[in-house]
Amino acid sequence: METRRRGRQTMVFPTQPSIASFASVAGKKEGEGPLASYFDLVENDTKFGQKSWEKAESQMQILALEAALKKKNWQTKDLDVIFAGDLLNQCVSSSFSLRASGIPFYGLYGACSTMAESLSLAAMMVDGGYAEHAAAMTSSHFASAERQYRFPLVYGGQRTPTAQWTVTGAGCVLVQPEGEGPYLQAATTGIIVDYGIKDANNMGAAMAPAAAATLLRYLHDTGQEPKEFDAIYTGDLGHLGSRLFREILTAEGLVMKNHIDCGSILYDAARQNVKSGGSGPGCCAAVLCGRILPRLERGSYRRVLFIATGALMSQTTFLQKESIPAIAHLVELRGPECTARG
Amino acid sequence: METRRRGRQTMVFPTQPSIASFASVAGKKEGEGPLASYFDLVENDTKFGQKSWEKAESQMQILALEAALKKKNWQTKDLDVIFAGDLLNQCVSSSFSLRASGIPFYGLYGACSTMAESLSLAAMMVDGGYAEHAAAMTSSHFASAERQYRFPLVYGGQRTPTAQWTVTGAGCVLVQPEGEGPYLQAATTGIIVDYGIKDANNMGAAMAPAAAATLLRYLHDTGQEPKEFDAIYTGDLGHLGSRLFREILTAEGLVMKNHIDCGSILYDAARQNVKSGGSGPGCCAAVLCGRILPRLERGSYRRVLFIATGALMSQTTFLQKESIPAIAHLVELRGPECTARG
Repeated sequence: METRRRGRQTMVFPTQPSIASFASVAGKKEGEGPLASYFDLVENDTKFGQKSWEKAESQMQILALEAALKKKNWQTKDLDVIFAGDLLNQCVSSSFSLRASGIPFYGLYGACSTMAESLSLAAMMVDGGYAEHAAAMTSSHFASAERQYRFPLVYGGQRTPTAQWTVTGAGCVLVQPEGEGPYLQAATTGIIVDYGIKDANNMGAAMAPAAAATLLRYLHDTGQEPKEFDAIYTGDLGHLGSRLFREILTAEGLVMKNHIDCGSILYDAARQNVKSGGSGPGCCAAVLCGRILPRLERGSYRRVLFIATGALMSQTTFLQKESIPAIAHLVELRGPECTARG
Repeated sequence: METRRRGRQTMVFPTQPSIASFASVAGKKEGEGPLASYFDLVENDTKFGQKSWEKAESQMQILALEAALKKKNWQTKDLDVIFAGDLLNQCVSSSFSLRASGIPFYGLYGACSTMAESLSLAAMMVDGGYAEHAAAMTSSHFASAERQYRFPLVYGGQRTPTAQWTVTGAGCVLVQPEGEGPYLQAATTGIIVDYGIKDANNMGAAMAPAAAATLLRYLHDTGQEPKEFDAIYTGDLGHLGSRLFREILTAEGLVMKNHIDCGSILYDAARQNVKSGGSGPGCCAAVLCGRILPRLERGSYRRVLFIATGALMSQTTFLQKESIPAIAHLVELRGPECTARG
């Protein structure tokens, strides 16, 4: 049997699954930030026309999926499988967004790493011939996350400088066996890294070592170097976490000149009062679908690494004074004009 | 590219991934039931030597993984990937059980369907050459689930006749490319089915239509008939849900003489006061690893279908008066002595 594994954590996709379509949805605050014009849909109603924030988040997924399908003129019935997950308890944004869809569904929980996790598995299913048309999707909503994890919004709690702002956003990517790209070339599965950080207002510090570990493993497994990529995106390390990420890599002898963190570019830090930047599964999902994939498509990027980072704690583990385990999954992307590497 | 898809929801595994090892862990009540002697480990301490029920549940996963590895003399470093998930918010039983393991990890949320979901994806990764050694694992714990979903245990709340008892149990299955079986032959991905049931004390009724839909789809996609199997197991429909499942199939012209529900056999209903039976991801995980796989291994079963069912609601959706979306994933298993079907 032909192996599609490189090293212990990386898998390659020799058939080069192609991203058929993608779409992003963003909320009001995200629509007032520097990436506003990149999103397919910006909604000023925080509830997206729904009765609750949880339903609003499901609605965002529905809108992202519909927009991605529509661009390609696909129907829900064309999809063989969807991988989706979110931050809410029992991942109800995903199960409620998909409950009327009839799409074969594998539910994921990867916290803010879900966009890379879902895309890795969708790519694998298509590359292996297990699916013809696969989807990967995730979301987060500021208000549903705040209600679940932190304080009632009306409480008006102060934020620490290291805290991040949960992005109201969603992204959906459709994958098919052959097409015009961008292409999915490889994926590295993360391992859980826990450096003992216990401050739930400093997720960036908890996740930075996981992102560095996954990137180092990918480079080791594939023999690539950072300079071979136009950009290396992390999910939602924020300003502080990004600095830590680069410091860790510098200590490993890697100077990262092409690192961009989705959480650090989604808002205008000076103007939008988001402290250390954006976070949430919807953060890098919206940036992937709004900024990264369009650049690959039109050739302004040729090769990109996308590393989504997740903090795997819960409110209960926080109250039980546990540290924050983190994980990062990586996907290697290349544009249509770029020759596949051997 | 060779397709490994049959119909819209079913994938086949032509390389016949082999189950290398498996192990089950059960709690005190489960160790007093009719399946007591089947489990690898029965622990009378509800906390499994830990300080909290949540930690106890993580410990159960650690014990199940260690026991499965030990049977085959594998180390954690031999595993290329593990798929795991559980019922707790943010799936912390799984992330905390694996945080020191160093195993590449994809987190799942499939509620009580997680054993079949994880096994399907592990089989696919091995069959496709993306992993050499994969693991699938899940758990549930009565006390951690009660604390999260229902009442403080000390409250001593009455249970309705349709309620089910969350099983304290865990199961872990290791998959490799070649071996002596049992073999993974195919898997059917579930779609979400929601018949509008809103009673969180009647999960069996919410999940029965999902189980029936997945079984019918599998039979349609593969051309198999129920009578070709020694047993068709469902995960945790319980007594009432099992009756509904068989009624739905009877209406479709299928008389199910070989149906067994894991939740209906794990406890002695008359003696153990579990109302409609057992539930939770650990329910069918422990029965799979304690009873089904050993029977396949020694040839007393030749072919089995394993359909794990999950209810995809949360406490929040319950309070918001939403109905309960359900899903069922199916795995086709065959014993070493049974010839692979074409």
